[in-house]
Amino acid sequence: MSTEKPLILISNDDGITAPGILATVEVMKTLGKVVVVAPDSPQSGMGHAITINKPLRLVKNNQFGPEVESYQCSGTPADCVKLAVDKVLHRKPDILVSGANHGSNSSINVIYSGTMSAAMEGGIEGITSVGFSLLDFSWDADFSAAKVYMKRIMENVIKHGLPTDTLLNVNVPNIPLEEIKGTKICRQAKAKWVEEFDQRKDPHGRDYFWLTGKFTNFDKGEDTDEWALANGYVSIVPVQFDLTAHHAIQTLNTWDL
Amino acid sequence: MSTEKPLILISNDDGITAPGILATVEVMKTLGKVVVVAPDSPQSGMGHAITINKPLRLVKNNQFGPEVESYQCSGTPADCVKLAVDKVLHRKPDILVSGANHGSNSSINVIYSGTMSAAMEGGIEGITSVGFSLLDFSWDADFSAAKVYMKRIMENVIKHGLPTDTLLNVNVPNIPLEEIKGTKICRQAKAKWVEEFDQRKDPHGRDYFWLTGKFTNFDKGEDTDEWALANGYVSIVPVQFDLTAHHAIQTLNTWDL
Repeated sequence: MSTEKPLILISNDDGITAPGILATVEVMKTLGKVVVVAPDSPQSGMGHAITINKPLRLVKNNQFGPEVESYQCSGTPADCVKLAVDKVLHRKPDILVSGANHGSNSSINVIYSGTMSAAMEGGIEGITSVGFSLLDFSWDADFSAAKVYMKRIMENVIKHGLPTDTLLNVNVPNIPLEEIKGTKICRQAKAKWVEEFDQRKDPHGRDYFWLTGKFTNFDKGEDTDEWALANGYVSIVPVQFDLTAHHAIQTLNTWDL
Repeated sequence: MSTEKPLILISNDDGITAPGILATVEVMKTLGKVVVVAPDSPQSGMGHAITINKPLRLVKNNQFGPEVESYQCSGTPADCVKLAVDKVLHRKPDILVSGANHGSNSSINVIYSGTMSAAMEGGIEGITSVGFSLLDFSWDADFSAAKVYMKRIMENVIKHGLPTDTLLNVNVPNIPLEEIKGTKICRQAKAKWVEEFDQRKDPHGRDYFWLTGKFTNFDKGEDTDEWALANGYVSIVPVQFDLTAHHAIQTLNTWDL
Protein backbone atom coordinates (compact mmCIF):
# COMPACT_ATOMS: atom_id res chain seq x y z
CA MET A 1 0.00 0.00 0.00
CA SER A 2 1.04 3.62 -0.48
CA THR A 3 2.71 5.65 2.25
CA GLU A 4 -0.30 7.99 2.49
CA LYS A 5 -2.57 7.50 5.48
CA PRO A 6 -5.32 5.04 4.54
CA LEU A 7 -9.02 5.93 4.53
CA ILE A 8 -10.58 3.65 7.15
CA LEU A 9 -14.33 2.92 7.34
CA ILE A 10 -15.58 1.65 10.70
CA SER A 11 -18.91 -0.07 11.34
CA ASN A 12 -20.34 -2.58 13.81
CA ASP A 13 -23.53 -4.37 14.84
CA ASP A 14 -23.90 -3.30 18.47
CA GLY A 15 -24.79 0.22 17.33
CA ILE A 16 -22.87 3.48 17.17
CA THR A 17 -23.07 4.14 20.93
CA ALA A 18 -21.40 0.84 21.91
CA PRO A 19 -18.09 1.10 23.82
CA GLY A 20 -16.58 -1.47 21.42
CA ILE A 21 -16.79 0.81 18.38
CA LEU A 22 -15.29 3.69 20.40
CA ALA A 23 -12.32 1.45 21.19
CA THR A 24 -11.91 0.74 17.47
CA VAL A 25 -12.12 4.43 16.58
CA GLU A 26 -9.43 5.25 19.17
CA VAL A 27 -7.06 2.67 17.68
CA MET A 28 -7.74 3.35 14.02
CA LYS A 29 -7.40 7.16 14.39
CA THR A 30 -3.69 6.52 14.98
CA LEU A 31 -3.40 4.58 11.71
CA GLY A 32 -5.38 6.62 9.18
CA LYS A 33 -8.32 8.89 8.41
CA VAL A 34 -11.41 7.42 10.05
CA VAL A 35 -15.05 7.63 8.91
CA VAL A 36 -17.77 5.83 10.92
CA VAL A 37 -21.08 4.61 9.48
CA ALA A 38 -22.80 2.37 12.02
CA PRO A 39 -26.31 1.25 12.96
CA ASP A 40 -28.39 3.60 15.12
CA SER A 41 -29.53 0.62 17.24
CA PRO A 42 -28.22 -2.85 18.12
CA GLN A 43 -28.33 -5.37 15.23
CA SER A 44 -26.90 -8.52 16.82
CA GLY A 45 -27.81 -11.78 15.10
CA MET A 46 -28.72 -10.00 11.87
CA GLY A 47 -26.50 -12.28 9.79
CA HIS A 48 -25.98 -10.88 6.31
CA ALA A 49 -29.38 -9.15 6.22
CA ILE A 50 -29.92 -6.24 3.84
CA THR A 51 -32.90 -3.87 3.81
CA ILE A 52 -34.86 -3.94 0.57
CA ASN A 53 -38.46 -3.46 1.67
CA LYS A 54 -38.14 -0.14 3.50
CA PRO A 55 -36.03 2.98 3.00
CA LEU A 56 -32.94 3.77 5.05
CA ARG A 57 -32.09 6.85 7.09
CA LEU A 58 -28.56 8.20 7.36
CA VAL A 59 -27.87 10.99 9.88
CA LYS A 60 -24.57 12.76 10.52
CA ASN A 61 -23.67 12.99 14.20
CA ASN A 62 -20.82 14.02 16.49
CA GLN A 63 -20.45 10.75 18.37
CA PHE A 64 -16.64 10.67 18.29
CA GLY A 65 -15.78 14.36 18.48
CA PRO A 66 -15.06 16.93 15.77
CA GLU A 67 -12.11 15.12 14.16
CA VAL A 68 -14.02 11.92 13.22
CA GLU A 69 -16.73 12.05 10.54
CA SER A 70 -19.57 9.91 11.85
CA TYR A 71 -23.02 8.81 10.69
CA GLN A 72 -25.75 6.64 12.16
CA CYS A 73 -27.88 4.52 9.83
CA SER A 74 -31.26 2.88 10.37
CA GLY A 75 -30.20 -0.28 8.54
CA THR A 76 -28.20 -3.44 9.12
CA PRO A 77 -24.39 -3.64 9.25
CA ALA A 78 -24.31 -4.71 5.57
CA ASP A 79 -26.56 -1.73 4.69
CA CYS A 80 -24.13 0.60 6.52
CA VAL A 81 -21.20 -0.54 4.39
CA LYS A 82 -23.17 -0.24 1.13
CA LEU A 83 -24.45 3.25 2.05
CA ALA A 84 -21.03 4.40 3.22
CA VAL A 85 -19.38 3.47 -0.07
CA ASP A 86 -22.12 4.89 -2.32
CA LYS A 87 -23.36 7.95 -0.40
CA VAL A 88 -20.77 8.99 2.20
CA LEU A 89 -17.29 8.24 0.87
CA HIS A 90 -18.20 8.16 -2.85
CA ARG A 91 -15.33 5.69 -3.23
CA LYS A 92 -14.10 2.46 -1.71
CA PRO A 93 -12.21 3.02 1.56
CA ASP A 94 -8.75 1.45 1.81
CA ILE A 95 -9.65 -0.43 4.97
CA LEU A 96 -12.85 -1.53 6.69
CA VAL A 97 -12.91 -2.47 10.37
CA SER A 98 -16.07 -3.88 11.94
CA GLY A 99 -16.54 -4.02 15.70
CA ALA A 100 -15.12 -4.47 18.15
CA ASN A 101 -18.09 -6.65 18.97
CA HIS A 102 -19.28 -7.23 22.52
CA GLY A 103 -19.28 -11.06 22.45
CA SER A 104 -17.66 -13.89 20.50
CA ASN A 105 -17.93 -14.34 16.74
CA SER A 106 -15.71 -17.40 16.62
CA SER A 107 -16.47 -20.65 14.80
CA ILE A 108 -19.99 -21.00 13.32
CA ASN A 109 -20.97 -17.61 14.82
CA VAL A 110 -19.38 -16.05 11.72
CA ILE A 111 -22.61 -17.07 9.92
CA TYR A 112 -24.99 -15.36 12.38
CA SER A 113 -22.83 -12.32 13.10
CA GLY A 114 -23.77 -8.79 12.10
CA THR A 115 -20.20 -7.71 12.87
CA MET A 116 -18.81 -10.22 10.39
CA SER A 117 -21.52 -9.38 7.81
CA ALA A 118 -20.19 -5.81 7.65
CA ALA A 119 -16.67 -7.18 7.15
CA MET A 120 -17.97 -9.72 4.61
CA GLU A 121 -19.76 -6.95 2.69
CA GLY A 122 -16.46 -5.04 2.63
CA GLY A 123 -14.67 -8.12 1.32
CA ILE A 124 -17.25 -8.60 -1.43
CA GLU A 125 -16.78 -4.92 -2.40
CA GLY A 126 -13.04 -5.56 -2.71
CA ILE A 127 -12.13 -3.62 0.46
CA THR A 128 -9.42 -4.93 2.83
CA SER A 129 -11.73 -5.89 5.72
CA VAL A 130 -11.38 -7.17 9.29
CA GLY A 131 -13.94 -7.91 12.01
CA PHE A 132 -12.94 -7.81 15.69
CA SER A 133 -14.80 -9.33 18.64
CA LEU A 134 -14.09 -9.55 22.36
CA LEU A 135 -15.37 -12.57 24.31
CA ASP A 136 -17.39 -10.43 26.72
CA PHE A 137 -21.05 -9.66 26.06
CA SER A 138 -21.33 -6.95 28.72
CA TRP A 139 -21.67 -3.27 27.84
CA ASP A 140 -18.86 -2.42 30.27
CA ALA A 141 -16.44 -4.95 28.74
CA ASP A 142 -12.76 -4.00 29.03
CA PHE A 143 -11.33 -3.45 25.53
CA SER A 144 -7.84 -2.41 26.68
CA ALA A 145 -6.14 -5.71 25.70
CA ALA A 146 -8.20 -5.93 22.51
CA LYS A 147 -6.96 -2.45 21.52
CA VAL A 148 -3.33 -3.55 21.75
CA TYR A 149 -3.95 -6.51 19.41
CA MET A 150 -6.25 -4.50 17.15
CA LYS A 151 -3.41 -2.06 16.55
CA ARG A 152 -0.79 -4.76 15.99
CA ILE A 153 -2.99 -6.73 13.60
CA MET A 154 -4.15 -3.69 11.62
CA GLU A 155 -0.57 -2.45 11.24
CA ASN A 156 0.19 -5.78 9.59
CA VAL A 157 -2.95 -5.65 7.45
CA ILE A 158 -2.08 -2.14 6.22
CA LYS A 159 1.51 -3.17 5.54
CA HIS A 160 0.85 -6.50 3.79
CA GLY A 161 -2.73 -6.23 2.50
CA LEU A 162 -4.84 -9.39 2.54
CA PRO A 163 -4.93 -12.34 0.13
CA THR A 164 -7.50 -11.79 -2.67
CA ASP A 165 -11.16 -12.30 -1.68
CA THR A 166 -10.19 -12.94 1.95
CA LEU A 167 -11.15 -11.05 5.11
CA LEU A 168 -10.22 -11.67 8.73
CA ASN A 169 -12.33 -12.78 11.69
CA VAL A 170 -10.41 -11.83 14.85
CA ASN A 171 -11.57 -12.85 18.34
CA VAL A 172 -9.90 -11.76 21.56
CA PRO A 173 -10.16 -13.80 24.78
CA ASN A 174 -11.57 -11.99 27.80
CA ILE A 175 -8.39 -12.05 29.91
CA PRO A 176 -5.89 -9.36 30.94
CA LEU A 177 -3.29 -8.30 28.37
CA GLU A 178 -0.41 -9.89 30.28
CA GLU A 179 -2.16 -13.29 30.20
CA ILE A 180 -2.69 -13.26 26.42
CA LYS A 181 -0.07 -15.53 24.87
CA GLY A 182 -0.13 -13.95 21.39
CA THR A 183 -2.02 -14.60 18.15
CA LYS A 184 -2.82 -17.79 16.24
CA ILE A 185 -3.85 -18.07 12.59
CA CYS A 186 -6.71 -20.60 12.78
CA ARG A 187 -9.41 -22.41 10.90
CA GLN A 188 -13.08 -22.14 11.88
CA ALA A 189 -13.93 -24.84 14.46
CA LYS A 190 -16.80 -27.22 13.68
CA ALA A 191 -19.34 -26.23 16.29
CA LYS A 192 -23.01 -25.35 16.53
CA TRP A 193 -25.66 -23.98 18.82
CA VAL A 194 -27.85 -26.62 20.41
CA GLU A 195 -31.13 -24.76 20.60
CA GLU A 196 -33.58 -24.82 23.42
CA PHE A 197 -36.59 -22.58 22.98
CA ASP A 198 -37.97 -21.21 26.21
CA GLN A 199 -41.73 -21.63 25.76
CA ARG A 200 -43.99 -19.23 27.71
CA LYS A 201 -47.60 -18.13 27.76
CA ASP A 202 -48.57 -14.48 27.24
CA PRO A 203 -51.27 -12.83 29.42
CA HIS A 204 -53.82 -13.88 26.78
CA GLY A 205 -52.92 -17.57 27.11
CA ARG A 206 -51.04 -17.84 23.83
CA ASP A 207 -47.61 -19.46 23.44
CA TYR A 208 -44.47 -17.57 22.59
CA PHE A 209 -40.85 -18.72 22.31
CA TRP A 210 -37.51 -17.22 23.27
CA LEU A 211 -34.49 -18.50 21.38
CA THR A 212 -31.83 -19.77 23.77
CA GLY A 213 -29.10 -22.29 23.23
CA LYS A 214 -25.81 -23.78 24.23
CA PHE A 215 -22.71 -23.40 22.09
CA THR A 216 -21.19 -26.84 21.52
CA ASN A 217 -17.75 -27.42 20.00
CA PHE A 218 -17.35 -30.82 18.33
CA ASP A 219 -13.89 -30.09 16.97
CA LYS A 220 -10.86 -31.40 18.88
CA GLY A 221 -8.38 -29.78 16.46
CA GLU A 222 -5.67 -27.60 17.98
CA ASP A 223 -5.62 -25.48 14.82
CA THR A 224 -9.12 -24.06 15.45
CA ASP A 225 -10.24 -20.66 16.73
CA GLU A 226 -11.98 -22.33 19.68
CA TRP A 227 -8.77 -24.02 20.77
CA ALA A 228 -6.78 -20.80 20.45
CA LEU A 229 -9.29 -18.78 22.49
CA ALA A 230 -9.57 -21.44 25.20
CA ASN A 231 -5.77 -21.48 25.47
CA GLY A 232 -5.23 -17.74 25.82
CA TYR A 233 -4.54 -16.72 22.21
CA VAL A 234 -6.14 -14.12 19.97
CA SER A 235 -7.65 -16.14 17.08
CA ILE A 236 -7.36 -14.92 13.48
CA VAL A 237 -9.40 -16.84 10.89
CA PRO A 238 -9.11 -15.93 7.20
CA VAL A 239 -12.67 -15.96 5.80
CA GLN A 240 -13.92 -16.32 2.23
CA PHE A 241 -17.25 -15.62 0.57
CA ASP A 242 -16.97 -18.31 -2.11
CA LEU A 243 -19.14 -20.88 -0.31
CA THR A 244 -18.67 -23.57 -2.99
CA ALA A 245 -17.83 -26.97 -1.51
CA HIS A 246 -15.37 -27.59 -4.36
CA HIS A 247 -14.46 -31.03 -3.02
CA ALA A 248 -18.10 -32.17 -3.49
CA ILE A 249 -18.31 -31.39 -7.21
CA GLN A 250 -16.77 -34.73 -8.29
CA THR A 251 -19.20 -36.73 -6.15
CA LEU A 252 -22.26 -34.87 -7.42
CA ASN A 253 -21.13 -35.37 -11.01
CA THR A 254 -21.57 -39.14 -10.54
CA TRP A 255 -25.33 -38.71 -9.96
CA ASP A 256 -27.97 -39.66 -12.50
CA LEU A 257 -29.62 -36.29 -13.10
CA MET B 1 -31.04 -44.00 3.49
CA SER B 2 -33.68 -46.42 4.70
CA THR B 3 -36.59 -47.56 2.55
CA GLU B 4 -39.09 -45.82 4.83
CA LYS B 5 -40.56 -42.58 3.54
CA PRO B 6 -38.36 -39.71 4.74
CA LEU B 7 -39.61 -36.91 7.02
CA ILE B 8 -39.27 -33.73 4.97
CA LEU B 9 -39.26 -30.24 6.51
CA ILE B 10 -40.11 -27.40 4.12
CA SER B 11 -39.46 -23.70 4.71
CA ASN B 12 -38.83 -20.60 2.60
CA ASP B 13 -38.29 -16.84 2.82
CA ASP B 14 -41.15 -15.50 0.67
CA GLY B 15 -43.63 -16.54 3.36
CA ILE B 16 -46.04 -19.43 3.75
CA THR B 17 -48.58 -18.06 1.25
CA ALA B 18 -46.08 -17.84 -1.65
CA PRO B 19 -46.85 -19.99 -4.71
CA GLY B 20 -43.24 -21.21 -4.70
CA ILE B 21 -43.60 -23.09 -1.40
CA LEU B 22 -46.86 -24.63 -2.60
CA ALA B 23 -44.99 -25.97 -5.64
CA THR B 24 -42.40 -27.50 -3.30
CA VAL B 25 -45.06 -29.08 -1.08
CA GLU B 26 -46.74 -30.64 -4.14
CA VAL B 27 -43.47 -32.24 -5.25
CA MET B 28 -42.22 -33.34 -1.85
CA LYS B 29 -45.57 -34.92 -0.85
CA THR B 30 -44.84 -37.57 -3.49
CA LEU B 31 -41.45 -38.36 -1.88
CA GLY B 32 -42.13 -38.45 1.86
CA LYS B 33 -44.03 -37.14 4.87
CA VAL B 34 -44.07 -33.33 4.66
CA VAL B 35 -44.15 -30.78 7.51
CA VAL B 36 -44.06 -27.05 6.72
CA VAL B 37 -42.73 -24.36 9.08
CA ALA B 38 -42.40 -21.10 7.18
CA PRO B 39 -42.42 -17.35 7.88
CA ASP B 40 -45.81 -15.64 8.25
CA SER B 41 -44.56 -12.73 6.09
CA PRO B 42 -41.92 -12.18 3.39
CA GLN B 43 -38.31 -12.28 4.66
CA SER B 44 -36.29 -11.67 1.49
CA GLY B 45 -32.78 -10.33 2.01
CA MET B 46 -32.71 -11.51 5.62
CA GLY B 47 -29.40 -13.33 5.14
CA HIS B 48 -28.69 -15.63 8.06
CA ALA B 49 -30.56 -13.47 10.59
CA ILE B 50 -31.84 -15.03 13.80
CA THR B 51 -34.22 -13.43 16.30
CA ILE B 52 -32.73 -13.02 19.77
CA ASN B 53 -34.22 -9.73 21.01
CA LYS B 54 -37.90 -10.57 20.75
CA PRO B 55 -39.97 -13.70 21.22
CA LEU B 56 -41.30 -15.80 18.35
CA ARG B 57 -44.84 -16.88 17.54
CA LEU B 58 -45.65 -20.25 16.01
CA VAL B 59 -49.21 -20.90 14.81
CA LYS B 60 -50.59 -24.09 13.27
CA ASN B 61 -52.59 -23.50 10.09
CA ASN B 62 -54.27 -25.39 7.27
CA GLN B 63 -52.45 -23.73 4.37
CA PHE B 64 -51.84 -26.95 2.41
CA GLY B 65 -54.93 -28.99 3.25
CA PRO B 66 -55.56 -31.61 5.93
CA GLU B 67 -52.80 -34.05 4.89
CA VAL B 68 -49.88 -31.60 5.36
CA GLU B 69 -48.94 -30.41 8.87
CA SER B 70 -48.22 -26.71 8.53
CA TYR B 71 -47.14 -23.84 10.81
CA GLN B 72 -46.46 -20.14 10.30
CA CYS B 73 -43.75 -18.48 12.35
CA SER B 74 -43.10 -14.79 13.09
CA GLY B 75 -39.34 -15.22 12.69
CA THR B 76 -36.74 -15.49 9.98
CA PRO B 77 -36.11 -18.56 7.80
CA ALA B 78 -33.28 -19.66 10.14
CA ASP B 79 -35.63 -19.23 13.14
CA CYS B 80 -38.21 -21.43 11.37
CA VAL B 81 -35.75 -24.30 11.02
CA LYS B 82 -34.56 -24.03 14.64
CA LEU B 83 -38.15 -23.91 15.96
CA ALA B 84 -39.25 -26.76 13.71
CA VAL B 85 -36.53 -29.08 15.00
CA ASP B 86 -36.93 -28.19 18.69
CA LYS B 87 -40.68 -27.54 19.07
CA VAL B 88 -42.56 -29.11 16.13
CA LEU B 89 -40.76 -32.27 15.03
CA HIS B 90 -38.88 -32.93 18.30
CA ARG B 91 -36.22 -34.56 16.13
CA LYS B 92 -34.11 -33.77 13.08
CA PRO B 93 -36.03 -34.30 9.83
CA ASP B 94 -34.38 -36.52 7.22
CA ILE B 95 -34.56 -33.84 4.56
CA LEU B 96 -34.98 -30.06 4.51
CA VAL B 97 -36.11 -28.23 1.38
CA SER B 98 -36.19 -24.42 1.30
CA GLY B 99 -38.10 -22.51 -1.38
CA ALA B 100 -38.81 -22.59 -4.15
CA ASN B 101 -37.80 -18.94 -4.04
CA HIS B 102 -39.33 -16.35 -6.34
CA GLY B 103 -36.06 -14.93 -7.78
CA SER B 104 -32.45 -15.99 -8.24
CA ASN B 105 -30.15 -17.06 -5.42
CA SER B 106 -27.20 -17.82 -7.68
CA SER B 107 -23.62 -16.68 -7.16
CA ILE B 108 -23.04 -14.14 -4.33
CA ASN B 109 -26.81 -14.01 -3.63
CA VAL B 110 -26.28 -17.14 -1.52
CA ILE B 111 -24.92 -14.74 1.14
CA TYR B 112 -27.97 -12.43 1.20
CA SER B 113 -30.60 -15.10 0.71
CA GLY B 114 -33.18 -16.02 3.31
CA THR B 115 -34.01 -19.14 1.27
CA MET B 116 -30.42 -20.33 1.46
CA SER B 117 -30.15 -19.37 5.15
CA ALA B 118 -32.88 -21.90 5.97
CA ALA B 119 -30.98 -24.53 3.96
CA MET B 120 -27.70 -23.47 5.59
CA GLU B 121 -29.27 -23.77 9.06
CA GLY B 122 -30.39 -27.27 8.13
CA GLY B 123 -26.88 -28.13 6.98
CA ILE B 124 -25.39 -26.84 10.24
CA GLU B 125 -27.91 -29.00 12.14
CA GLY B 126 -26.70 -32.04 10.18
CA ILE B 127 -29.87 -32.29 8.04
CA THR B 128 -29.63 -33.16 4.33
CA SER B 129 -30.65 -29.74 2.96
CA VAL B 130 -31.40 -28.17 -0.42
CA GLY B 131 -32.54 -24.67 -1.44
CA PHE B 132 -34.41 -24.12 -4.73
CA SER B 133 -34.92 -20.83 -6.57
CA LEU B 134 -36.58 -19.89 -9.85
CA LEU B 135 -35.23 -16.93 -11.82
CA ASP B 136 -38.57 -15.09 -11.76
CA PHE B 137 -39.36 -12.56 -9.03
CA SER B 138 -43.08 -12.32 -9.86
CA TRP B 139 -45.76 -13.75 -7.59
CA ASP B 140 -47.38 -15.50 -10.59
CA ALA B 141 -44.11 -17.17 -11.66
CA ASP B 142 -44.56 -20.51 -13.45
CA PHE B 143 -43.00 -23.28 -11.32
CA SER B 144 -44.00 -26.17 -13.63
CA ALA B 145 -40.49 -26.74 -15.06
CA ALA B 146 -38.91 -26.16 -11.64
CA LYS B 147 -41.15 -28.89 -10.20
CA VAL B 148 -39.85 -31.46 -12.70
CA TYR B 149 -36.23 -30.73 -11.75
CA MET B 150 -37.05 -30.42 -8.04
CA LYS B 151 -38.41 -33.98 -8.12
CA ARG B 152 -35.48 -35.37 -10.14
CA ILE B 153 -32.87 -33.70 -7.92
CA MET B 154 -34.55 -34.65 -4.62
CA GLU B 155 -34.93 -38.28 -5.73
CA ASN B 156 -31.15 -38.31 -6.17
CA VAL B 157 -30.57 -36.53 -2.85
CA ILE B 158 -32.77 -39.06 -1.01
CA LYS B 159 -31.05 -41.98 -2.78
CA HIS B 160 -27.42 -40.84 -2.37
CA GLY B 161 -27.46 -38.43 0.57
CA LEU B 162 -25.11 -35.45 0.42
CA PRO B 163 -21.38 -35.20 1.16
CA THR B 164 -20.73 -34.33 4.84
CA ASP B 165 -21.31 -30.68 5.80
CA THR B 166 -22.55 -29.85 2.30
CA LEU B 167 -25.92 -28.52 1.15
CA LEU B 168 -27.17 -27.67 -2.35
CA ASN B 169 -28.08 -24.31 -3.91
CA VAL B 170 -30.25 -25.07 -6.96
CA ASN B 171 -31.36 -22.35 -9.39
CA VAL B 172 -33.75 -22.92 -12.29
CA PRO B 173 -33.74 -20.68 -15.38
CA ASN B 174 -37.05 -19.00 -16.23
CA ILE B 175 -37.66 -20.82 -19.51
CA PRO B 176 -40.12 -23.53 -20.57
CA LEU B 177 -39.32 -27.13 -19.58
CA GLU B 178 -38.59 -28.21 -23.15
CA GLU B 179 -35.92 -25.49 -23.49
CA ILE B 180 -34.04 -26.52 -20.33
CA LYS B 181 -30.97 -28.49 -21.41
CA GLY B 182 -30.49 -30.37 -18.11
CA THR B 183 -28.51 -29.79 -14.91
CA LYS B 184 -24.93 -28.67 -14.29
CA ILE B 185 -22.92 -29.13 -11.08
CA CYS B 186 -21.29 -25.68 -10.71
CA ARG B 187 -19.15 -23.46 -8.58
CA GLN B 188 -20.41 -20.08 -7.29
CA ALA B 189 -19.58 -17.36 -9.85
CA LYS B 190 -17.56 -14.35 -8.68
CA ALA B 191 -20.11 -11.58 -8.95
CA LYS B 192 -21.48 -8.72 -6.86
CA TRP B 193 -24.17 -6.11 -6.68
CA VAL B 194 -23.09 -2.65 -7.76
CA GLU B 195 -25.22 -0.54 -5.46
CA GLU B 196 -26.98 2.63 -6.34
CA PHE B 197 -29.03 4.14 -3.56
CA ASP B 198 -32.07 6.06 -4.76
CA GLN B 199 -31.98 9.21 -2.60
CA ARG B 200 -35.32 10.96 -1.96
CA LYS B 201 -36.77 13.61 0.36
CA ASP B 202 -39.67 12.85 2.66
CA PRO B 203 -42.58 15.33 3.10
CA HIS B 204 -40.62 16.84 6.02
CA GLY B 205 -37.59 17.60 3.85
CA ARG B 206 -35.38 14.83 5.24
CA ASP B 207 -33.38 12.44 3.09
CA TYR B 208 -34.09 8.75 2.82
CA PHE B 209 -32.51 6.03 0.68
CA TRP B 210 -33.81 3.00 -1.22
CA LEU B 211 -31.34 0.22 -1.85
CA THR B 212 -31.16 -0.61 -5.56
CA GLY B 213 -28.37 -2.18 -7.55
CA LYS B 214 -27.21 -3.98 -10.62
CA PHE B 215 -25.97 -7.56 -10.48
CA THR B 216 -22.58 -7.77 -12.18
CA ASN B 217 -20.83 -11.03 -13.05
CA PHE B 218 -17.04 -10.71 -13.31
CA ASP B 219 -16.47 -14.44 -13.79
CA LYS B 220 -15.94 -15.75 -17.35
CA GLY B 221 -15.70 -19.39 -16.19
CA GLU B 222 -17.97 -21.90 -17.91
CA ASP B 223 -18.10 -23.98 -14.72
CA THR B 224 -20.10 -21.31 -12.81
CA ASP B 225 -23.77 -21.14 -11.88
CA GLU B 226 -24.16 -17.91 -13.85
CA TRP B 227 -22.86 -19.57 -17.03
CA ALA B 228 -25.14 -22.58 -16.57
CA LEU B 229 -28.24 -20.44 -16.03
CA ALA B 230 -27.46 -18.13 -18.97
CA ASN B 231 -27.06 -21.21 -21.16
CA GLY B 232 -30.31 -22.95 -20.28
CA TYR B 233 -29.18 -25.31 -17.50
CA VAL B 234 -30.41 -25.81 -13.95
CA SER B 235 -27.40 -24.90 -11.75
CA ILE B 236 -26.52 -27.01 -8.71
CA VAL B 237 -23.83 -25.56 -6.41
CA PRO B 238 -22.63 -27.60 -3.40
CA VAL B 239 -22.35 -25.13 -0.50
CA GLN B 240 -20.35 -25.34 2.72
CA PHE B 241 -20.51 -23.42 6.00
CA ASP B 242 -16.83 -23.69 6.85
CA LEU B 243 -15.89 -20.20 5.61
CA THR B 244 -12.18 -20.62 6.37
CA ALA B 245 -9.98 -19.48 3.49
CA HIS B 246 -7.64 -22.41 4.13
CA HIS B 247 -5.30 -21.36 1.30
CA ALA B 248 -4.59 -18.04 3.12
CA ILE B 249 -3.34 -19.61 6.36
CA GLN B 250 0.23 -20.09 5.08
CA THR B 251 0.47 -16.45 3.95
CA LEU B 252 -0.84 -15.06 7.24
CA ASN B 253 1.61 -17.22 9.18
CA THR B 254 4.48 -15.24 7.60
CA TRP B 255 3.30 -12.01 9.28
CA ASP B 256 5.08 -10.39 12.21
CA LEU B 257 2.34 -10.50 14.84
